Amino acid sequence: MKKFIDSVDTLLATSLRGFAKAHADIVELNPAPCFIKRLQPKSGKVAIISGGGSGHEPLHSGLVGLGMLDAACPGQIFTSPTPDQMMAAADAVDSGAGVLFVVKNYAGDVMNFEMAAEMLSMPVATVLVNDDVSLPKDHSIGRRGVAGTLVVEKIVGAAAEQGLGLLACKALGERVVAATASMGVALSSCTVPALGHPTFNLAEDEMEMGVGIHGEHGRATLKLQSATEIVTQLAEHLQQELQLQASQRVLLHVNGFGATPLVELHLIYELAWQYLQQRGVEVVRSLVGNYTTSLDMAGCSLTVTVLDDELIQYWDAPVNTAALRWGC
Amino acid sequence: MKKFIDSVDTLLATSLRGFAKAHADIVELNPAPCFIKRLQPKSGKVAIISGGGSGHEPLHSGLVGLGMLDAACPGQIFTSPTPDQMMAAADAVDSGAGVLFVVKNYAGDVMNFEMAAEMLSMPVATVLVNDDVSLPKDHSIGRRGVAGTLVVEKIVGAAAEQGLGLLACKALGERVVAATASMGVALSSCTVPALGHPTFNLAEDEMEMGVGIHGEHGRATLKLQSATEIVTQLAEHLQQELQLQASQRVLLHVNGFGATPLVELHLIYELAWQYLQQRGVEVVRSLVGNYTTSLDMAGCSLTVTVLDDELIQYWDAPVNTAALRWGC
Repeated sequence: MKKFIDSVDTLLATSLRGFAKAHADIVELNPAPCFIKRLQPKSGKVAIISGGGSGHEPLHSGLVGLGMLDAACPGQIFTSPTPDQMMAAADAVDSGAGVLFVVKNYAGDVMNFEMAAEMLSMPVATVLVNDDVSLPKDHSIGRRGVAGTLVVEKIVGAAAEQGLGLLACKALGERVVAATASMGVALSSCTVPALGHPTFNLAEDEMEMGVGIHGEHGRATLKLQSATEIVTQLAEHLQQELQLQASQRVLLHVNGFGATPLVELHLIYELAWQYLQQRGVEVVRSLVGNYTTSLDMAGCSLTVTVLDDELIQYWDAPVNTAALRWGC
Repeated sequence: MKKFIDSVDTLLATSLRGFAKAHADIVELNPAPCFIKRLQPKSGKVAIISGGGSGHEPLHSGLVGLGMLDAACPGQIFTSPTPDQMMAAADAVDSGAGVLFVVKNYAGDVMNFEMAAEMLSMPVATVLVNDDVSLPKDHSIGRRGVAGTLVVEKIVGAAAEQGLGLLACKALGERVVAATASMGVALSSCTVPALGHPTFNLAEDEMEMGVGIHGEHGRATLKLQSATEIVTQLAEHLQQELQLQASQRVLLHVNGFGATPLVELHLIYELAWQYLQQRGVEVVRSLVGNYTTSLDMAGCSLTVTVLDDELIQYWDAPVNTAALRWGC
């Protein structure tokens, strides 16, 4: 394993100290129980909290700040955070309007956020994100939450900033989840530091279609194809899932898993844009880059969210976080 | 070679079309001669133009916009752009106050920007960036321009936006170059698409200390060390070069080469911050992320710029580009 690391045990804590220092104008670190919190909270708004295993940076810590998350609870790498983290974060950022948890659909995250919600005394609601269409809708553990989580957090975060109440924020979040679909493909595995070797193996001419953001097995291990063939497959799945129609307006998010250069991500974006345009679907908002990563995995995912005027207004609203920043 | 690609011949052009579409609120693509140009130019200001081989994204195209570059000329991957690109870009963005070229010190870039400058009719000045201290100061081809280029472009871009004249912008840029030092280390090679295999080989327990951003050989191929040992070596070189003193204020930029996760880059940042803090050097501005990349290389560089009130004001000034955005 080749990584910049002193010890597996100290990697995350030291990295979080660095993150908080590098973005000291936006966030603050609470070391134990561990959470990252917005530095200048806005009183009287619904507090938006997310979290999950680390290794997907900038998700979620890089999305804490004005117009997005009030706190993020980082677990160890690819490991759920614990209920004491969510409880301490909720106590720190609740300002009387209640707390909305945005939770990616993984068993550990769901269980621990549920436990925290039950033990907290303020009103708590939860939005479950399960945008990964590489698993069938009726899969036993449900679909995974992947890069669409950022879209949910952006839109719900803007709504909370504008004063929407707790149940309205939850309903809005669920509306975004229903309007969002994602699917990814890996060209290489990631290497989890505590494991020390790649999570899975791909031959030199293979790719993993429908991969999860922890290197979970996808739909199929296939021979490597051209970028156009890959994009066509991903986009077809999204189109079927969302029943995309001509003249619909969408957000197109090309997300890198960590090791794929921007020159390739923008190529993927252009091909996905052409796919949608040929079907009369109008890309009115875009995001390209490494946002929901899988450590050092080479690969990317496509996310499409069907937009309307309300969602566009929330997407465009000011945001000031380490990873997303506009209008501020 | 595992990449998202249709053909080596079309990769860059298609990717640039995607980049321009994804950031259509900020930039515009001129396909031939190829350059990326700021969408809403400011009349009467010095035009700042940079460029170089592609493969280092977001540098330079991602730095075009308000408060930074007026145009960027992308060459093929790791290949200098040609004089017709710089000339067309200069003609497009000059608004009467002259053109400043920001050029990384590579023979091809230097020659081609010089040829363009000679053939252009408006006043043209050049700032040469050579911040890589892994080569000795008296090296025959001079030191390479690496991640410090972003710092030069940010500060000179802000000054031009505020109305500084051409020669003052050039002098300011040269002052930033003199105040800036960078050094990098690679844990893996990058793979250039047209080559199809890694540029160099490192054994499983080796790292390349002092690597260039195209995979150029550095100071030494060493056994892999701990993050603290690596940061100490890099920081010592920067300290010696800049003769850092207690109570000096600096910008600390940790730049990823493409495939190194943010969790590691923030670890490196924390360790570099501690190194400087122990010596009384005050980190007052920070930037952590993948800005001057080497395609899919795993590795990172440290850049330190000694700041004063004037440079801090320019660093903090509004910027609205694909990759750097604040205050707008």
